[in-house]
Amino acid sequence: MDKHEISSWFQGLQDRICSALEQTDGRASFREDAWDRPGGGGGRARVIQNGNILEKGGVNWSAVHGQTPEAIKKQLGNDGDEFFATGVSIVMHPQSPMVPIIHMNVRYFEMSNGVHWFGGGIDLTPHYVDVAQAKWFHQQLKAVCDAHHADYYDEFKPWADRYFYLKHRKETRGVGGIFFDRLRPTETVTKEDRWAFVQAVGEAFAPIYTHLMQQNEALSYGERERDWQRMRRGRYVEFNLVWDAGTKFGLETDGRTESILMSLPPQANWAYNFQPEPGSKEEATLHRLKQDIDWILA
Amino acid sequence: MDKHEISSWFQGLQDRICSALEQTDGRASFREDAWDRPGGGGGRARVIQNGNILEKGGVNWSAVHGQTPEAIKKQLGNDGDEFFATGVSIVMHPQSPMVPIIHMNVRYFEMSNGVHWFGGGIDLTPHYVDVAQAKWFHQQLKAVCDAHHADYYDEFKPWADRYFYLKHRKETRGVGGIFFDRLRPTETVTKEDRWAFVQAVGEAFAPIYTHLMQQNEALSYGERERDWQRMRRGRYVEFNLVWDAGTKFGLETDGRTESILMSLPPQANWAYNFQPEPGSKEEATLHRLKQDIDWILA
Repeated sequence: MDKHEISSWFQGLQDRICSALEQTDGRASFREDAWDRPGGGGGRARVIQNGNILEKGGVNWSAVHGQTPEAIKKQLGNDGDEFFATGVSIVMHPQSPMVPIIHMNVRYFEMSNGVHWFGGGIDLTPHYVDVAQAKWFHQQLKAVCDAHHADYYDEFKPWADRYFYLKHRKETRGVGGIFFDRLRPTETVTKEDRWAFVQAVGEAFAPIYTHLMQQNEALSYGERERDWQRMRRGRYVEFNLVWDAGTKFGLETDGRTESILMSLPPQANWAYNFQPEPGSKEEATLHRLKQDIDWILA
Repeated sequence: MDKHEISSWFQGLQDRICSALEQTDGRASFREDAWDRPGGGGGRARVIQNGNILEKGGVNWSAVHGQTPEAIKKQLGNDGDEFFATGVSIVMHPQSPMVPIIHMNVRYFEMSNGVHWFGGGIDLTPHYVDVAQAKWFHQQLKAVCDAHHADYYDEFKPWADRYFYLKHRKETRGVGGIFFDRLRPTETVTKEDRWAFVQAVGEAFAPIYTHLMQQNEALSYGERERDWQRMRRGRYVEFNLVWDAGTKFGLETDGRTESILMSLPPQANWAYNFQPEPGSKEEATLHRLKQDIDWILA
């Protein structure tokens, strides 16, 4: 498959995911902004707001190309003069604090000197960690991984623990998931194998998240849970703006700001030095925002 | 004056500023957390919340010292093995969207090889830009600058325009102010001169901000102005977490997170691709968030 087939497939994935989310939400629909990149290529930003279940979220597709910016050459350690990048990127902030936030990204990158790779990941950020659901979520991801390579889950799960980490809070963003980058062909794994895996990750998103939406949307909550949700959203903002490599890179290299920052929540709160009550469910969640928890065995 | 006299004076400044703000607010008082830095030194974090005028803010003093982290040596281009840093840092988020957000910082840095310098600044972030008030604010800062050096305002005002800038939004954070760093003695300006100027900047804060509090607190506003305030606070979060060198440096080098992030607002909102109505006061404010406006002549 070539870069055009990959980017078309990603475009179709965006369509399928938007349909599935709209159907499960039952009220809101995605609004699309098509945009062009001055240096080459463009994208389709799709945003959903004020749904039954989804308060604010985006499912973005883009395929951009052109002269490789010096900053990218440096970061990649690759001096290919032209680059091509395509992918789908998603963040969903639900209305209810009982429904988790989710993020998914699948992407392909190619340089004019022939070097190419895949990257991506899915991670889940429950406002309140439900151990059984975290386990179920990891089981789904492990099944996707295992169908493609015996080592994938064991490599990509800890990679997510390291990546989705707020060093300044000593907290993970949520219960993790999988993360991978620079997946090149090897002697035993072809480009086709890598692509089949990335496609499977993309296709896994909608069934996983619509299940979690349906399972949790009817749970009751009050002001206490909403307050906690807004503080957890504050942590989500901190991760995305301080630590997320993709966000930083986009903002520093003149990416499309509104597409990059669609990942931010509709509202976030900060309280000075908030400490949850001992024994509370908020404290229990904080205790579970740790690296290297084996959720499959949880 | 030596580093101990400087840090004691800063401590007194913190006291005077907290008293002035409490008196003008009329309801809330500062709560203090004293903290120790494992490697040497410590600080007094003072936070005010839910006042009549001030919704959330901090006035922090610290004096830290110890082995110079490699990251600091690199950033400073100075290989002094020990460092000493002291200063006062302030951000105030008012309840009312009609009262501006303000930031002030004064600081002193010294390396064991004898190199030392002052830094600091004040900048104002009105939710709605009032041209007459922005002019008055800059007149106050210019008067402080002019009393110490004929070139200071002309140097430090554009420096603030460059520093308090959201490149990804093509917006300044507010109406600017003054910013300066690495102020070392020169052939014609002594360390004593620099110090007298930094003291004057510190002492200027309370009269300037209490005046702006009193002038604006009684202005009426409704939900529209509160919504806009929350979006402007979102921009404040973006600046602090993405661009502010001090914040980034603190978070990446294990500073005290709660002190560093006291600058964040109690609440911030994000809407996808928000566009103010043509001819609205929100649009007028956006038009004034530009670099190189001569507020003195405004």
